Amino acid sequence: MGDPMIDHIVERVMQKIMEDVLIPVEVSARHIHLSKEDMQVLFGEEYVMTKKKDLSQLGQCQYQERVTLIGPKGVIEKVAVLGPAREKTQVEISKTDAVKLGINPPVRESGDLKGSGDIFIATDKSVIKAKESVILAKRHIHMTTEDAKKLQVMDKQIVKVKLLTERPIILEDVVVRVSDKYALNLHIDFDEANAALCTSGTLGKMIIE
Amino acid sequence: MGDPMIDHIVERVMQKIMEDVLIPVEVSARHIHLSKEDMQVLFGEEYVMTKKKDLSQLGQCQYQERVTLIGPKGVIEKVAVLGPAREKTQVEISKTDAVKLGINPPVRESGDLKGSGDIFIATDKSVIKAKESVILAKRHIHMTTEDAKKLQVMDKQIVKVKLLTERPIILEDVVVRVSDKYALNLHIDFDEANAALCTSGTLGKMIIE
Repeated sequence: MGDPMIDHIVERVMQKIMEDVLIPVEVSARHIHLSKEDMQVLFGEEYVMTKKKDLSQLGQCQYQERVTLIGPKGVIEKVAVLGPAREKTQVEISKTDAVKLGINPPVRESGDLKGSGDIFIATDKSVIKAKESVILAKRHIHMTTEDAKKLQVMDKQIVKVKLLTERPIILEDVVVRVSDKYALNLHIDFDEANAALCTSGTLGKMIIE
Repeated sequence: MGDPMIDHIVERVMQKIMEDVLIPVEVSARHIHLSKEDMQVLFGEEYVMTKKKDLSQLGQCQYQERVTLIGPKGVIEKVAVLGPAREKTQVEISKTDAVKLGINPPVRESGDLKGSGDIFIATDKSVIKAKESVILAKRHIHMTTEDAKKLQVMDKQIVKVKLLTERPIILEDVVVRVSDKYALNLHIDFDEANAALCTSGTLGKMIIE
């Protein structure tokens, strides 16, 4: 209580505890969020999407419906559509996908689409050109304000995460995103997951420097 | 000269220098080494392979000829064949490739094939079942004995390497391989490269702990 030595010890102990907090890893497959407008063009004006399953983040779901991505060099079929509809259509793929499609989208946080990649999106009903829609999702950790307090990090803070696998890697430049709607999860794409050979149940260890 | 303080300073300076030694990164695409026997079956007994280009490691080349890999769940065409012929056929793919083919090969060093994966290899002439041939190549650094001396590492030593890119990762569990036939290079696969967004000219920084 006011003793700098004790404060220092408490701080050090807290650091040690934080070092050992493990975060569940979720691997995001390529997917797409559609605007209501684009959804109507691709599936029909009166069409109601069918929920396939709820996702770990509150209120988010995956639909049964799928779309095809068409780039200058390749096509990727059966791409998952997530709901609910968003303000802007957003396509999240891996670098491997981008090479196959023949495009070079930037690494971005969700929603930051200015200057991002273009792609054609097709269904059996229609095809649209989605301008400034394609990103490589910047890896991030979702957490609640309570998690953030416990882990002593803030919204938008950059941390490292070690993936605890048989081929371990340390991801630098991982952004923390805090909201009480979030469940504690590290979100990475399949390139990042395969580089470390993540399996279901892989845990990440947050490293704060 | 015998002064512990000076020895300590020299050691620290050497550590600092080592920390700053950068290693060129080479990304290995999927490829295959064939035994002479398998080469004859796949291309014909009298057939002479055509060299396409020399590789960075002395005496190694890529042929113009390509093969097709056939797994239980998928096919990958136009896979590069490297030369010269080896004692045993060895197929080196990424985890992404393995998922596409529907197989689950282990992470191994080159030549360590016992218990590794099976795959069918086809040309327009023939098809073989290559048993215990498929591995995910364990990431490694090639270097000469002189490099090793300078970097203060030994053959088979495990180090970390930070990939210096816009999406940096630290690869743990990187094995050092020393031979005077080798050129200084970090060899990783496309999953590892794409996880970090490596480009041609990417450098790695070795971290010894």
